[in-house]
Amino acid sequence: MYRTHTCGELRLSHIGQQVTLAGWVQRVRRMGGMIFVDLRDRFGITQLVFNQETNADLCAQANELGREFVIQVQAEVAERSNKNKHIPTGEIELLVSTMRVLNTSETPPFTIEDNTDGGDDLRMKYRYLDLRRNTVRENMILRHKVAFETRRYLDQMGFLEVETPILIASTPEGARDFVVPSRMNQGQFYALPQSPQLFKQLLMVSGFDKYFQIAKCFRDEDLRADRQPEFTQIDCEMSFVKQEDVLNLFEGMMKHLFRFVKNIDMTDAFPRMTWADAMKYYGSDKPDIRFDMQFVEIKELVSGKNFVVFDEADYVGAICASNCATYTRKQLDELTDFVKRPQIGAKGLVYIRCEADGTFKSSVDKFYTNDDLAKIATACKAEKGDLILILAGATEKTQKALCELRLEMGSRLGLRDKNVFAPLWVIDFPLFQWDEETQRFYAMHHPFTCPNEDDIALLDTNPGKVRATAYDMVINGVELGGGSIRIHESALQKKMFELLGFTPEQAEAQFGFLMSAFKYGAPPHGGLAFGLDRLVSLFAGLDSIRDCIAFPKNNSGRDVMIDAPSVIDNAQLDELGLRIELKKS
Amino acid sequence: MYRTHTCGELRLSHIGQQVTLAGWVQRVRRMGGMIFVDLRDRFGITQLVFNQETNADLCAQANELGREFVIQVQAEVAERSNKNKHIPTGEIELLVSTMRVLNTSETPPFTIEDNTDGGDDLRMKYRYLDLRRNTVRENMILRHKVAFETRRYLDQMGFLEVETPILIASTPEGARDFVVPSRMNQGQFYALPQSPQLFKQLLMVSGFDKYFQIAKCFRDEDLRADRQPEFTQIDCEMSFVKQEDVLNLFEGMMKHLFRFVKNIDMTDAFPRMTWADAMKYYGSDKPDIRFDMQFVEIKELVSGKNFVVFDEADYVGAICASNCATYTRKQLDELTDFVKRPQIGAKGLVYIRCEADGTFKSSVDKFYTNDDLAKIATACKAEKGDLILILAGATEKTQKALCELRLEMGSRLGLRDKNVFAPLWVIDFPLFQWDEETQRFYAMHHPFTCPNEDDIALLDTNPGKVRATAYDMVINGVELGGGSIRIHESALQKKMFELLGFTPEQAEAQFGFLMSAFKYGAPPHGGLAFGLDRLVSLFAGLDSIRDCIAFPKNNSGRDVMIDAPSVIDNAQLDELGLRIELKKS
Repeated sequence: MYRTHTCGELRLSHIGQQVTLAGWVQRVRRMGGMIFVDLRDRFGITQLVFNQETNADLCAQANELGREFVIQVQAEVAERSNKNKHIPTGEIELLVSTMRVLNTSETPPFTIEDNTDGGDDLRMKYRYLDLRRNTVRENMILRHKVAFETRRYLDQMGFLEVETPILIASTPEGARDFVVPSRMNQGQFYALPQSPQLFKQLLMVSGFDKYFQIAKCFRDEDLRADRQPEFTQIDCEMSFVKQEDVLNLFEGMMKHLFRFVKNIDMTDAFPRMTWADAMKYYGSDKPDIRFDMQFVEIKELVSGKNFVVFDEADYVGAICASNCATYTRKQLDELTDFVKRPQIGAKGLVYIRCEADGTFKSSVDKFYTNDDLAKIATACKAEKGDLILILAGATEKTQKALCELRLEMGSRLGLRDKNVFAPLWVIDFPLFQWDEETQRFYAMHHPFTCPNEDDIALLDTNPGKVRATAYDMVINGVELGGGSIRIHESALQKKMFELLGFTPEQAEAQFGFLMSAFKYGAPPHGGLAFGLDRLVSLFAGLDSIRDCIAFPKNNSGRDVMIDAPSVIDNAQLDELGLRIELKKS
Repeated sequence: MYRTHTCGELRLSHIGQQVTLAGWVQRVRRMGGMIFVDLRDRFGITQLVFNQETNADLCAQANELGREFVIQVQAEVAERSNKNKHIPTGEIELLVSTMRVLNTSETPPFTIEDNTDGGDDLRMKYRYLDLRRNTVRENMILRHKVAFETRRYLDQMGFLEVETPILIASTPEGARDFVVPSRMNQGQFYALPQSPQLFKQLLMVSGFDKYFQIAKCFRDEDLRADRQPEFTQIDCEMSFVKQEDVLNLFEGMMKHLFRFVKNIDMTDAFPRMTWADAMKYYGSDKPDIRFDMQFVEIKELVSGKNFVVFDEADYVGAICASNCATYTRKQLDELTDFVKRPQIGAKGLVYIRCEADGTFKSSVDKFYTNDDLAKIATACKAEKGDLILILAGATEKTQKALCELRLEMGSRLGLRDKNVFAPLWVIDFPLFQWDEETQRFYAMHHPFTCPNEDDIALLDTNPGKVRATAYDMVINGVELGGGSIRIHESALQKKMFELLGFTPEQAEAQFGFLMSAFKYGAPPHGGLAFGLDRLVSLFAGLDSIRDCIAFPKNNSGRDVMIDAPSVIDNAQLDELGLRIELKKS
């Protein structure tokens, strides 16, 4: 071993001990006849002292050290006169007696500091240096803890982790599969799994009872900021359970993670909200309930007053921002610009200021009397000093815009503290989504999702109203995971396929394999999957999942550090029976 | 929840309780007016009783049950008059009051029993049913435990599990890479990792200090019985360590696994053997030391007696099989046939029987006196009643054949009990292997393996004699894992490349990326990787790794259950910029 202690370990109690440390040179400072070196490793920073008077040669050696050199020192632990309260080793320093340079370093292309001078691209190219920074490493440590505690909890609950294959067959799921040409079976391809869905259901047929896996999944999609071609899921499935059992068990898991990873005790039951309420009160199936500011529908209140915008709108919705009546013209213009941005798409914004004197001032004073406005304020439970913001238009689009406005107001008012966690189960999702264009129903979750028992009769009469036994766990407006109880009876499954417009032949072609397996005694089962990347991002207070992935890819799906993907030999293409024929663009 | 208890849970203490169970019908027996059903789930089997006299309707229902039906029953726990000592629930039975068929089952293509009537192919096609059998499921539970305890140990030791990417760039390692065409970067390919070697060394450069990962790895090789295109490694790397540190830590890991998975306390230090001794005494770099029977070189003893076979041989080696002097002519012929099999390739076998009366009888009596034979017996430490077996020929080939003969004798003598575990570190591997054909050295482990400090001078004078700081963990003749201390200094690395015959340009092209990373302060580091599949197989006493993989592929790399690989759409090929052009054969 190159060391007796790590750089985060020594305290006052070690004073007088001879120790050996090894690590990286974080910083070299020269003061009079002394040289101070901050020595860094994963565990912390320890100050080394070299004294010109006591050892000139050694001091000269230390004078040659550059940033990120790797060194080993033998030294005595001494009390520091000038203590540093900010680091755990700040009460001691090391009086170095010998030093060995284990490796030199070229000057890194950016500083290894929390606030580095390196831009995104440079840091991605030299990711192995970026990972030296505390902030980035802490995210990886957090990820390790989340994964480890997830496994510990699920193991305690009797779950078995089963590895399912990565080289599988192409499946008819939503997104595009990555494929892998087979050399031994030329002209044929494996596919990389978008999820272990098929295999986890098979494991239930196999009687595994409780399965989980922290599994790599793959999707060949055009990437957005928060997508990666490979991502990690905590994938779970259970047999002989109903929705209530699944919710309880995974609520327990999340509480376990908060307790053991974040040191937060969540004693209350997670609130539950139907999908219908989530859409009605928050305009989103993943509401951020760290703050209230629920939507109030005021279409009836505002109609018939000759304000054409409201009269012609399918939907008029309001939110009430506490203590914002003092918003200036400029601030209100900013909000108007915000909702008019193309990605939000509202035509305009109506406001009502609830003044301190009990009067109202609004952008639609022409059409509404003080009395009219008072009624709206009452409906919105607005108090003196509050600001009411109103959007109007087509229902779905307006709710979505109002959702964005609500989140913006939450941020402006400091109601979205990253250290506050507000979990929520969203339940009772619709089983089907009607598609106007193709004039047919699509499965909102997937075609194996079980309808709510109470709604089975509606399958024949009003399929659009059937609720699914599908559920999402949402925290702070982030959908962390979701799942459903699956259909295990073939009669019900047949009906589902009919409603989804599959002919028996199409159903057979796409899902025949699983259907066959289900013929041999499939138990009732259900499960869910969490996005590990998103979960860690949430815990770490990050804006992008990329920052909690050790070696992420960029928006073109490239790993710029190792330069992947790249060209391969013609010989290898020959072996695979393939030829490249680029599409002309 | 569909049940109050599992099928493995109820005991005498539950007698009189009303319970609900759910599971699969394992067996239905009819006796007089009674029907007995064995109800099975992952946790065990519970006997259900239906009584014609007390409930004729229910009994009629039970009479309709087929094998593998999924049912739910409500029942009272009762003491069994005819107790079954073989199962934990054997003292009770359930007097059923209501029953619900949750799902029917077609008759499975083979019986769900420990000794099934299904052949290999059928069981692979219906793997989801094969996984219902106790023996197969137990392997998966064992695998879960091994993986979980591995993580628990390494977490305790300060290791961080870091996920490294699956979509990487092709590397110049030994075997062929699987590749993944990129749609967003047409004409370019990702490769699937053969191991996370590159990334784990980068993580050391990043200062992660102790890394591990239970990682999927991929090799596109022609498959043998014990190879799979995707396999799982316990991959580990540490910084600021020497060989001794790595051996101690992972010896600790193996002891932890034996303790917590197999309930075996291994208190002694694992023996260590140099590669040279392993070859000399066992003819193998992975000796099975559950039994002794070491090789004795007797070339000098047997030369010059006009026995041409021995005189012309480079090597004459003997093993002594205790108490086998009574072997019959037929048994000796079997052994001769065994060593003459093409895969072993010996020309013949010489034996010496050490008779009870102190005389010797051998197949070479013509050439050797009783005195000559006595000397050989003394060299072999043979006692009265022992049998000496001798092979002669070219050194390497003969040692290999003698190794096989030794293992065969060990098996015949019952010295290779699967419940006995004999761990061993093989150390001091040669750094280089000389290749006669190309007249150059190859790296035995990989080109980053650090030479033994004491042998650095030999690099210039006698490279073939340089020992590497490389090590393998071997248990019962199975190589479970191996690794090395890596070179972290660029001067030494350059010398290695020279000795391996790389020009600076070739070294740059193949390893430039890692070399660049090493310029920024690489710490001394080393590690190793264990094959999880092999480890689980060893713990389970299996002959093939396939039996401890939930969904394995066959020898053609096919998953016959899901029928992968398979053809894909032309549209998808177009998107990838690829055309299939099968090689004519």
